[in-house]
Amino acid sequence: MGSLDTERATIGWAAKDPSGILSPYTYTLRNTGAEDVYIKVLYCGICHTDIHQIKNDLGMSNYPMVPGHEVVGEVKEVGSEVSNFKVGDKVGVGVLVGCCRNCRPCEADVEQYCNKKIWSYNDVYTDGKPTQGGFAESMVVDQKFVVKIPDGMALEQAAPLLCAGVTVFSPLSHFGLKQSGLRGGILGLGGVGHMGVLIAKAMGHHVTVISSSDKKRVEAMEHLGADQYLVSSDATRMQEAADSLDYIIDTVPANHPLEPYLSLLKLDGKLILTGVINTPMQFLTPMVMLGRKAITGSFIGSMKETKEMLEFCREKGVTSMIEVIKMDYVNKAFERLEKNDVRYRFVVDVAGSKLDP
Amino acid sequence: MGSLDTERATIGWAAKDPSGILSPYTYTLRNTGAEDVYIKVLYCGICHTDIHQIKNDLGMSNYPMVPGHEVVGEVKEVGSEVSNFKVGDKVGVGVLVGCCRNCRPCEADVEQYCNKKIWSYNDVYTDGKPTQGGFAESMVVDQKFVVKIPDGMALEQAAPLLCAGVTVFSPLSHFGLKQSGLRGGILGLGGVGHMGVLIAKAMGHHVTVISSSDKKRVEAMEHLGADQYLVSSDATRMQEAADSLDYIIDTVPANHPLEPYLSLLKLDGKLILTGVINTPMQFLTPMVMLGRKAITGSFIGSMKETKEMLEFCREKGVTSMIEVIKMDYVNKAFERLEKNDVRYRFVVDVAGSKLDP
Repeated sequence: MGSLDTERATIGWAAKDPSGILSPYTYTLRNTGAEDVYIKVLYCGICHTDIHQIKNDLGMSNYPMVPGHEVVGEVKEVGSEVSNFKVGDKVGVGVLVGCCRNCRPCEADVEQYCNKKIWSYNDVYTDGKPTQGGFAESMVVDQKFVVKIPDGMALEQAAPLLCAGVTVFSPLSHFGLKQSGLRGGILGLGGVGHMGVLIAKAMGHHVTVISSSDKKRVEAMEHLGADQYLVSSDATRMQEAADSLDYIIDTVPANHPLEPYLSLLKLDGKLILTGVINTPMQFLTPMVMLGRKAITGSFIGSMKETKEMLEFCREKGVTSMIEVIKMDYVNKAFERLEKNDVRYRFVVDVAGSKLDP
Repeated sequence: MGSLDTERATIGWAAKDPSGILSPYTYTLRNTGAEDVYIKVLYCGICHTDIHQIKNDLGMSNYPMVPGHEVVGEVKEVGSEVSNFKVGDKVGVGVLVGCCRNCRPCEADVEQYCNKKIWSYNDVYTDGKPTQGGFAESMVVDQKFVVKIPDGMALEQAAPLLCAGVTVFSPLSHFGLKQSGLRGGILGLGGVGHMGVLIAKAMGHHVTVISSSDKKRVEAMEHLGADQYLVSSDATRMQEAADSLDYIIDTVPANHPLEPYLSLLKLDGKLILTGVINTPMQFLTPMVMLGRKAITGSFIGSMKETKEMLEFCREKGVTSMIEVIKMDYVNKAFERLEKNDVRYRFVVDVAGSKLDP
């Protein structure tokens, strides 16, 4: 597996251009530094953001790009200053692999809001080399951005927790919305939305899934255990539900009106946006003023929250619902994800796949 | 002054149609009920909302309409169940005169968010009669919606505190933004904005006034005591001030872009809207997500907060800056207010005016 003295080659599946088609790509990893953990990737989830990145939807993509930021692996080597991990540990890596450590967010342990954060892929590391993600044989990651996967948690199901899971756990925790008995809404039932239902239910909330159509009623209520299902175009039911929710986690990654959802919120209710949308959202000021409601948002979660979330999920027995695939299916999986045709997350069995051509 | 047994006539100045021109109007007040306070009006401030109401800008105006919801007066008679007020007390009345008392907001002492709240004017009281405001000789008001003006406070300067003052005090109090040392922004320097500067300074905040032009720099810095003045079109200064404010109170009553102000906020900063704007506001989701910022709003304040605000202003020596006028100038004052030509609030010396034709 190489040594501390020589750079190692690894193989991943990379997008080579904005077609977004992934294919094998060999590149080198940095040597395992004093603070680094060298990880053999076992599983990696597919997040909706991966599509935007591989297709250059945000205009900031560099190629070749190995995506993947819901990574579960096994520790193969640790640097001299690493004491929390040992060879053989099962660990996770999420959306970030670096931060400045000196700014106000970093000092407050919310490094996800650091202006100098380094993304797991499609970014440049401190050594000047591009970062590459988890659809690869192995990664070298600073220990600050590595978490232990709790014993007993299925590794493939742990992968989506590292992005989708913490994306819903973090705002519920930060905004004081963890206590049991609250009434929450989950808008959109994709990867993040399904984790929203599962985590909110595990917190003891009454959970309403809000969707644009009736199609997901059975799965929301029966498979995921939601308490209520609202179709946003059903004016009568929406009116009945007005003023009833403490929060809504809005996971919809495309533009949509906010008024119908603001009206579902109680006094002091929060509409929590988790999706990057590249056209302006609209709202009317009385909809927030007359009820002191907040339109706010949250971006993944901190490493501290990631650890808390994993512990919470272990305690409560929360796992993701996934479809496990091999790497040779990844391009088809991206196509299906674009059509929202997955219940609810694809996870690539990286270690079980043939990665080289 | 009439008795408990017969309805009393009073005279006010009412708008008779959407021209919004005020002229003398005689009407009857209800008898002083067990919970009522009969008040001789001394002073009444002019709020920007009064313009919308008298001109039917919101399409919900009923005429004749006596506006005015920043009322200071003297108690002339109290009902049998009124123990907190006695004849001769100087008291205030604000935007509301009724609420349901049973809903969640009412039970939480934030009756301003009650769906059955009754406005001081242009509304219908529980007896089926129209409510009429403070540009009048006298009012009968339920004791719950009456506050004592603290001894030693100039009565004419107290009037604007009852709407403009509590509109800024309430969100700072509710959102945990009262402690000294915070950095706040005040967007817009009208009646509410000037109270924002004065109250935030009295809380010990570093206050930045943000305006579309340089015109108000001297008055903001020298007359009101702001610490900093930013012109929103000055890209360089705006960029330097990015990520620097804990909150912004946005008092602008017309549509405006939110991005420039969201970017001034620190992590977890709050943009607090206080102006009803009847066209949709826009924002981009990353502007709130990447910094966990909130776009929120607040509507006047509760009676409890009004009392706290008056006590705070007395302790700190905060008063409004006003131009006192007689009733025969009120129509001219409305014209000037529409052009923002007042420093910073008109207050009508009602008791010192000739009200009858």
